[in-house]
Amino acid sequence: MDILSIVIIISSIIALLYAGVQAFLIIREDEGTERMKEIAKAIQEGSKAFLNRQYRTVAIVAAVLAIIIAVALPDGWILAIGFVVGAAGSAIAGYIGMHISIRANVRTANKAKEGIKKAFSLAFRGGSVTGLSVVGIALLGLSVFYFWLHNPELMVGFIFGASLISLFARVGGGIYTKGADVGADLVGKVRYGIPEDDPRNPAVIADNVGDNVGDCAGMGADLYETYVVTALSSMLLAYTLNLSYEYVVLPLIFGAVAILATLISIPFVSVKDTKWIMGGLYKGVVITAVISAIGFYLISVYVVNDIRVFYAGLIGLVIMALQVVITEYYTSYRFKPTLKISESSQSGTGITIITGLAYALQASFVPALYISAGILISFFIFGGSITGMGIYGISVAATAMLSVAGIIISIDSFGPITDNAGGIAEMAELPEDVRNITDPLDAVGNTTKAVTKGYAIASAALAALSLFAAYYEVISAHGFTMDLLTIINPPVLVGLFIGATLPFFFTSFLMNAVGKAAYSIVKEVIRQFDEIKGLMEGKAKPEYDKCVDIVTRTALRELVLPGVIAVVTPIAVGFILGPLALGGLLVGVILSGFALAILMTVGGGAWDNAKKYIELGNFGGKGSEAHKSAVVGDTVGDALKDTAGPAINPLVKVVNTISILFLALILAFHLL
Amino acid sequence: MDILSIVIIISSIIALLYAGVQAFLIIREDEGTERMKEIAKAIQEGSKAFLNRQYRTVAIVAAVLAIIIAVALPDGWILAIGFVVGAAGSAIAGYIGMHISIRANVRTANKAKEGIKKAFSLAFRGGSVTGLSVVGIALLGLSVFYFWLHNPELMVGFIFGASLISLFARVGGGIYTKGADVGADLVGKVRYGIPEDDPRNPAVIADNVGDNVGDCAGMGADLYETYVVTALSSMLLAYTLNLSYEYVVLPLIFGAVAILATLISIPFVSVKDTKWIMGGLYKGVVITAVISAIGFYLISVYVVNDIRVFYAGLIGLVIMALQVVITEYYTSYRFKPTLKISESSQSGTGITIITGLAYALQASFVPALYISAGILISFFIFGGSITGMGIYGISVAATAMLSVAGIIISIDSFGPITDNAGGIAEMAELPEDVRNITDPLDAVGNTTKAVTKGYAIASAALAALSLFAAYYEVISAHGFTMDLLTIINPPVLVGLFIGATLPFFFTSFLMNAVGKAAYSIVKEVIRQFDEIKGLMEGKAKPEYDKCVDIVTRTALRELVLPGVIAVVTPIAVGFILGPLALGGLLVGVILSGFALAILMTVGGGAWDNAKKYIELGNFGGKGSEAHKSAVVGDTVGDALKDTAGPAINPLVKVVNTISILFLALILAFHLL
Repeated sequence: MDILSIVIIISSIIALLYAGVQAFLIIREDEGTERMKEIAKAIQEGSKAFLNRQYRTVAIVAAVLAIIIAVALPDGWILAIGFVVGAAGSAIAGYIGMHISIRANVRTANKAKEGIKKAFSLAFRGGSVTGLSVVGIALLGLSVFYFWLHNPELMVGFIFGASLISLFARVGGGIYTKGADVGADLVGKVRYGIPEDDPRNPAVIADNVGDNVGDCAGMGADLYETYVVTALSSMLLAYTLNLSYEYVVLPLIFGAVAILATLISIPFVSVKDTKWIMGGLYKGVVITAVISAIGFYLISVYVVNDIRVFYAGLIGLVIMALQVVITEYYTSYRFKPTLKISESSQSGTGITIITGLAYALQASFVPALYISAGILISFFIFGGSITGMGIYGISVAATAMLSVAGIIISIDSFGPITDNAGGIAEMAELPEDVRNITDPLDAVGNTTKAVTKGYAIASAALAALSLFAAYYEVISAHGFTMDLLTIINPPVLVGLFIGATLPFFFTSFLMNAVGKAAYSIVKEVIRQFDEIKGLMEGKAKPEYDKCVDIVTRTALRELVLPGVIAVVTPIAVGFILGPLALGGLLVGVILSGFALAILMTVGGGAWDNAKKYIELGNFGGKGSEAHKSAVVGDTVGDALKDTAGPAINPLVKVVNTISILFLALILAFHLL
Repeated sequence: MDILSIVIIISSIIALLYAGVQAFLIIREDEGTERMKEIAKAIQEGSKAFLNRQYRTVAIVAAVLAIIIAVALPDGWILAIGFVVGAAGSAIAGYIGMHISIRANVRTANKAKEGIKKAFSLAFRGGSVTGLSVVGIALLGLSVFYFWLHNPELMVGFIFGASLISLFARVGGGIYTKGADVGADLVGKVRYGIPEDDPRNPAVIADNVGDNVGDCAGMGADLYETYVVTALSSMLLAYTLNLSYEYVVLPLIFGAVAILATLISIPFVSVKDTKWIMGGLYKGVVITAVISAIGFYLISVYVVNDIRVFYAGLIGLVIMALQVVITEYYTSYRFKPTLKISESSQSGTGITIITGLAYALQASFVPALYISAGILISFFIFGGSITGMGIYGISVAATAMLSVAGIIISIDSFGPITDNAGGIAEMAELPEDVRNITDPLDAVGNTTKAVTKGYAIASAALAALSLFAAYYEVISAHGFTMDLLTIINPPVLVGLFIGATLPFFFTSFLMNAVGKAAYSIVKEVIRQFDEIKGLMEGKAKPEYDKCVDIVTRTALRELVLPGVIAVVTPIAVGFILGPLALGGLLVGVILSGFALAILMTVGGGAWDNAKKYIELGNFGGKGSEAHKSAVVGDTVGDALKDTAGPAINPLVKVVNTISILFLALILAFHLL
């Protein structure tokens, strides 16, 4: 083993050690009162029950797929091992993250007694366990595999494993989290007029479980996948271009550098008061980005000896920063779009939805412009030739953007912890001064989620593009050359066309699933209020576990159809219409998937914060007509931003990974 | 002149003669009571005022563009003449259609006294004036130009003229119609609790004007454009491929055949009762399609001597039929999607919106599949080669689909006439037995609008694809060959990416404009109710003209920005990023534009009919909680289906026409 490989592997181990130590320190903290422990336990049990059942379902699918891969594909056994390891890595990262998240929540609520500084710090450290676990496991898996096989082509099983888990975690977790949330809100706030997180609401635990399985486990699996997909596709490109060893392992070096940068930044992430909590989190992003940039410079000069690597890396970091800024612009009530949505709520619910949709539709155009600029600049820096290193340049930018995933996931996982902490404080009826700490912490979770989702979709699009470049390299070696892959060729055009409608079709089932899951919760809660005497008066306890169980079953049932659509469509198009149409499909999915995912996540975030702005006392405040309209906007936005929108990320990647995996078969047996 | 050209020109003149005679007969009918005349007059004045002001604004833009075209482009003067004639044709067709529409409305209301059969017939004949004027003028313009110049390349000015008017008519009319409608509903139904079309509501005339300027003039201009774009791009392809004369003028022959088929079908369009009024209209489509198919067969055998022409033509007609069926499926309450939306309204407004969005997201996938199948089959029938006649085969299918535009526009224009007739009957307080005729006629207008919109977007996509093929022919002659136009080439990819977000960005301004226009109406109506004493009691008259004036000004102001975006984006991309990126952009706009337009029009139609289904007494009927939720769904749907969605059609086409028009300049001066 050379020095580079040792540095990479050690970095990934350091990330995991950090996560372990941090987890140990967090668990040692005090959980607070008996009531708090009790509530936390209910959330823990619900979360574990869901994740266990979800993983059991996925394990069966994965086992079947592993056998198919092993038997049907050339080098099947190696691909199958990679597939299992990739999937297991994602599952383990998700599991660790959630394990800590559902313990840090109650401890954060308890820590809030000692002030914002300590509560914030604990919640962020909890999030960082997920963040560092994800990048640590991803980097370790990739590097061990690479230093064993020395051939990225044999590693595509690994990314398909990651894709599969990510798809299920995002879709299942997404349906769960919003089915429970929307259901609990509809029946609690709207029907019975009891506040959010009220312990009398039988769906309240399910709602808190949802935050963890959706935002923590779901987002972790999603970015784990994007991370490995981006790294591997860049490695594949370098490998097929016969570039030197340093270029091939560049994504791993970037990853190692960024892990160290992230670890350095963590102690600086802090706040003094509740004024601008997001600012405290942004400190981590800025410091990580700056140190990473310095690291990329040193690598480009002293390791790769190619300054272009630094420029492309910088482009990736700039895109990341711009994406954060623009998402903040569209979803924070410090800026016009969200304020306008708040204001429009005074004219009725219809106008609230129309105005929200208007801004949501707007939000993808400018990102498309700067991502396009980034793509073109990195392409031309690296010579501007398709057959040369140009495309590799784009993948370097993507890799750089993804390398900082650790800090982004940390911030994202901060969200469900503080969200839960707020809920626990409410349910355990903690004194008002504690709630004055947990409430603003809870509120900022909303922004962190929106911002990380913007990052996730932009990086997913870049990852998928890199992967598509790898796809192209393979098919062009089989005679499907550039001139055939032209947009004027009807098979390609048709593939693009079907691909562009796929994200719409796929998310339609997710939206419906949220409706169904919410409806099942509403029915169950009404049943409990009808049958359990004294529940409304707070004299009897609701059956929390029944709600958790119902929404778990609905989510797992409803993830089947979209899951099948995502996996079968590319395979069907590939075998029936051939590799050219499939190439078109892959690009088509990215194109409309990007715009649709941004529409959904931005719209949802903006409606949510528009509601929060009214709740601060503006436009009539809580209980006003404007507030009622804003609540409806928030409900619609919830399904869009936490279920349908984020599920597009794994869709965009899974169609690409599955196509690359089955490409050899498709090239051998296709109809057209 | 040969026999073919004479037949074509005579057909177009027959269409215009029919429209003239029909118009004369309609105007001779009785207008009814003084009150009805008075209301009709207000609608007529409002409609004319809007159209005049809109045309005046557009005329200035057109004059500037005509001068630019004449001076800056090679063969500029011919292109400029074509541009002016194309634009004028569209404007005249829109004007004639609206002129009759706003006269047929009151006469239909009056005719309803004599029963459904006669009222239906009058309304449909009114619609057919628009339908036949549009195809007659389009065909006449195209054929006179072609037989003069004998070179389709010199005719691209004509389609750009049509595009420009269509863009403004759709966007301006769309903002007007829904600004007035949503505003009137919000303030009338929601705030003051007075029924729709109540004469006390000062916005009621503006609302009725909107139906005419949006659905009649707007849709007419839209399909006029699609018709000429499809025909001309097919002619361009045949011309550049050096095909024989018969192939070049095939779109004109198809058009002539379909005009005769439409005229034959018109007498058969009738209903006996109010049970399934849509069935009466479908008779016209079926008969027109069958006779056209026979005509296409005879042409392919006896004129072109190429049976493939018949097959491709048949594919076009089949796509048309499937598009009608699937739109009906998604938007009629006889089928599951709309019923489910109705049912979900019982769980609250949020779930109504979520469920509606779910089905709206779903509705583009299956059309993408059969349109793709149609594209591939016509491509392979014609040899399956890009450099050969394959692409021409696709354009033949598109031409066939568009040839029946006459009957489709007739059915579409039936909508605003019966919609207005219902409003006039309500405002003039006609007896209940008359309203029992006008109400179901009004209701069916909803379905006709949805169905024709489905047809309009599918045909716009095919038209734009044909046009893109023509674009490709030109750039490939300048060295931008197929292998460069590959989806893996970053400039192309970037073009696709920007293009795919453009329809989202463009419609965002339309959605906002509806909100603004509605808000201005709400303010004005509240002012009138406050200031005009006795208005609520029906003792004083509202100032209808003030509302008409306000929404006219808002619509014309708000159409500027989206208009500029549509025109400037392709030019900017072309000059900055070059013809390859521009090619990508053109395809990208089609891809996501298609899915987004279907989402918007289907969603809107489904919400509208879900509300209507509840109003029939289901799920609690009028005034129930479910109804309130459904009304919000309908409001959101209105902005989507009548403003934003339909505006995507001209966007998709105008980016293509403007690119072709400026291509020579772009090829000479581009940055990348």
